[in-house]
Amino acid sequence: MKHRRAVYPGSFDPVTNGHVDIIRRASALFDELVVAVLLNRGKTPLFSTEERLDMLRKSVAGWRNVRVDSFSGLMVDYMRKNDMAVAIRGLRAVSDLEYEFQLAHTNRTLYPEMETVFLMPGENYVYLTSTTVREVASLGGELGTQVPRHVSLALRKKFSEKK
Amino acid sequence: MKHRRAVYPGSFDPVTNGHVDIIRRASALFDELVVAVLLNRGKTPLFSTEERLDMLRKSVAGWRNVRVDSFSGLMVDYMRKNDMAVAIRGLRAVSDLEYEFQLAHTNRTLYPEMETVFLMPGENYVYLTSTTVREVASLGGELGTQVPRHVSLALRKKFSEKK
Amino acid sequence: MKHRRAVYPGSFDPVTNGHVDIIRRASALFDELVVAVLLNRGKTPLFSTEERLDMLRKSVAGWRNVRVDSFSGLMVDYMRKNDMAVAIRGLRAVSDLEYEFQLAHTNRTLYPEMETVFLMPGENYVYLTSTTVREVASLGGELGTQVPRHVSLALRKKFSEKK
Amino acid sequence: MKHRRAVYPGSFDPVTNGHVDIIRRASALFDELVVAVLLNRGKTPLFSTEERLDMLRKSVAGWRNVRVDSFSGLMVDYMRKNDMAVAIRGLRAVSDLEYEFQLAHTNRTLYPEMETVFLMPGENYVYLTSTTVREVASLGGELGTQVPRHVSLALRKKFSEKK
Amino acid sequence: MKHRRAVYPGSFDPVTNGHVDIIRRASALFDELVVAVLLNRGKTPLFSTEERLDMLRKSVAGWRNVRVDSFSGLMVDYMRKNDMAVAIRGLRAVSDLEYEFQLAHTNRTLYPEMETVFLMPGENYVYLTSTTVREVASLGGELGTQVPRHVSLALRKKFSEKK
Amino acid sequence: MKHRRAVYPGSFDPVTNGHVDIIRRASALFDELVVAVLLNRGKTPLFSTEERLDMLRKSVAGWRNVRVDSFSGLMVDYMRKNDMAVAIRGLRAVSDLEYEFQLAHTNRTLYPEMETVFLMPGENYVYLTSTTVREVASLGGELGTQVPRHVSLALRKKFSEKK
Repeated sequence: MKHRRAVYPGSFDPVTNGHVDIIRRASALFDELVVAVLLNRGKTPLFSTEERLDMLRKSVAGWRNVRVDSFSGLMVDYMRKNDMAVAIRGLRAVSDLEYEFQLAHTNRTLYPEMETVFLMPGENYVYLTSTTVREVASLGGELGTQVPRHVSLALRKKFSEKK
Repeated sequence: MKHRRAVYPGSFDPVTNGHVDIIRRASALFDELVVAVLLNRGKTPLFSTEERLDMLRKSVAGWRNVRVDSFSGLMVDYMRKNDMAVAIRGLRAVSDLEYEFQLAHTNRTLYPEMETVFLMPGENYVYLTSTTVREVASLGGELGTQVPRHVSLALRKKFSEKK
Repeated sequence: MKHRRAVYPGSFDPVTNGHVDIIRRASALFDELVVAVLLNRGKTPLFSTEERLDMLRKSVAGWRNVRVDSFSGLMVDYMRKNDMAVAIRGLRAVSDLEYEFQLAHTNRTLYPEMETVFLMPGENYVYLTSTTVREVASLGGELGTQVPRHVSLALRKKFSEKK
Repeated sequence: MKHRRAVYPGSFDPVTNGHVDIIRRASALFDELVVAVLLNRGKTPLFSTEERLDMLRKSVAGWRNVRVDSFSGLMVDYMRKNDMAVAIRGLRAVSDLEYEFQLAHTNRTLYPEMETVFLMPGENYVYLTSTTVREVASLGGELGTQVPRHVSLALRKKFSEKK
Repeated sequence: MKHRRAVYPGSFDPVTNGHVDIIRRASALFDELVVAVLLNRGKTPLFSTEERLDMLRKSVAGWRNVRVDSFSGLMVDYMRKNDMAVAIRGLRAVSDLEYEFQLAHTNRTLYPEMETVFLMPGENYVYLTSTTVREVASLGGELGTQVPRHVSLALRKKFSEKK
Repeated sequence: MKHRRAVYPGSFDPVTNGHVDIIRRASALFDELVVAVLLNRGKTPLFSTEERLDMLRKSVAGWRNVRVDSFSGLMVDYMRKNDMAVAIRGLRAVSDLEYEFQLAHTNRTLYPEMETVFLMPGENYVYLTSTTVREVASLGGELGTQVPRHVSLALRKKFSEKK
């Protein structure tokens, strides 16, 4: 039996319960799962890299075969360097699909040995995105059931600082 | 490390190179892969169960951890009986996605321990379906690069018998 | 204030909790709601008209302004005869949308005074269809949380008779 | 300058004003346009081949470079025999697109010299299909503005005969 | 009979004939309709809040039960404060649908008593957006039939000022 | 026979093999094809107008009836001035379709004599966009098979200058 290491890349700005659901599912499918924060020069995130890693660490504490990391540059370079052959992606909606297929195809062109595995989140997370969570929090709303409790507190703190 | 057994269910009427591509990808991800012909009382297939199993066996001969089977009734019952926790599905198009999500969700409701894993076929198989292959063959056309050679011969034989 | 009477047409073969969810939402929006079983000559339903009406009656017993009816022929003729100006449709998925728009547009052409109102079911019903419910039940599975209890019993009875 | 002959294939059961709109557009783009009724063994049309050809002839009488024909078997064989290198397809909706791409790709595999050209009908025909027209007519409704007048009469006659 | 107050929120930058069509339809369905300009801190509109309110007021002058307002912050907070239980949204296209479902679901999570009602605009407005109207006007084009006449004049004035 | 001049507008920042594939197909359908770089005031391209025109010229050198140009302002004004009645667009994905239909409809409203012709690229270019090509190149990756060789070199040069 081969040891299989998968990566679940994303911005996680912040991690939602939809992400946590995908992490739980992926951790059961593969021997080792690395949740990797993508550092994107072009975008300014709400939470710093360290804050996002910290929120992820708290969220995955329950699974032994999951750890948290970050990377910049091409995901395929990161995967090759770390001997990862599987990338995990959550699929929610039709409009996700075409972007995801474009991305998966590009990655496959750059690193033919890798495979992208798509998982379906639980039905409660079909309409959930980090963007929505940030927008609602910025206007003073709470989506308590859609993010872990520590994320909910971090959002409230972040937006009270901003005022 | 857990031994992971996955099932790739379908009609395979007949198996195409798109199916073979998914089989190759799935066999690399899991320890054991069972390609399972679904016997559907409601539909009359072009090829008999035995013919479809035989074409699949020839097509998967190259992979040690892949075998071929058939089942009737609920897929989740078949999976439970055979200790399979992963179902593989190929995703080609947006219109596939909603049907696949419906199916995956129903299966999850009936058997919460299972996971559906979606894989993307190679770009050459994005527009390929068994239905198209049958239709073209019934009108005397050949899609030689889209099915294994033995399937191409079986199609030609089938439709010359029918006349 | 105008008295507003809406119709919620469908096959309801059988009624699911998704339908019941839409009925609850529509009954709060309009003064009177008629849930109307469409009798379609072209299709053979699993349940007879009388069975479907009966299951619907049990399912809507909790709302005072909802009643159950059936019709054949063009929906717009039925609506005109019964002084209904609003048709309710549940929208779940992208693939529903184009069919629904075609239907709504055709109805609008035939009866310009009517309006089609689309409602979104609760997230638990996004992947639920009567077709799936029938298929699973025919193979001995149970989707207990997705249909009212009396429907679940009717399905079990129907398929044990059929054997 | 090359003489360019295009084919616009379809069931035309019956021809609608949406088809006529596409014919008008295609006839302006190519030197010669053949509107070709596809004879499909698997389906029973409402109108006979002769009736469909006749309705088409009346509908295209206004354009000099358009004529009407029928064919059975593979469209690419028909195109090759008649020296046609362009197939015209009307695109209305997202759900059309994937089927059309599959078809166009299959045809391209069988006859690489051909090209499929997609045109967008006028906005009044976005939701119009022959299926809807037949269904409405079968229930006694009229979609007078959506089909040529002679088709409207033919539909009324057809369904009064059927009773 | 309950008095029902609905809100139709949007940017209306500027109001188009598609918006006016939805307003007409919604005003017939509910006792009172408030067309509410959403003040979004993140975006710089072409027209000021006052200009947008003014164009809307001119456009809805024909309906007695329609009035115009503006709000900032969460729409659900605005709705709760003003005792509105229904939000109106126009649905044109498949790509709208997923965003709209996400929004409706978020709002439902924050304010479970509310309902989002989706209406289909007339076929002439299927491809019409404020973005397109602005872009065409900025390049000197006119979409006279797609916006009220006073909006057309306002656009011309706005872009001649900008030069 | 009419002389038919078509335009294929785009940003071409940079031209990809998918664009070249569409140019080849369109040049076979029409007597003359102008590939026209759209100068968009709102966006800052990676390559200057002159660089983009130059890369296009090298890419179309093989076809006698193709030339390269640029324009600003409304495409329909450019088409009218240059006596072009056909605009070419490549269609890859469902999400393209709605935007393309909106654009084609707007153009048709502004210039009713024009026609938009949609072509399907070869299957190898289904997932290819200039955006992806730029992103991968900016991170040091190479998509050598997806752009002409001279574009690949230009990308490498551009991003080594930027560091």
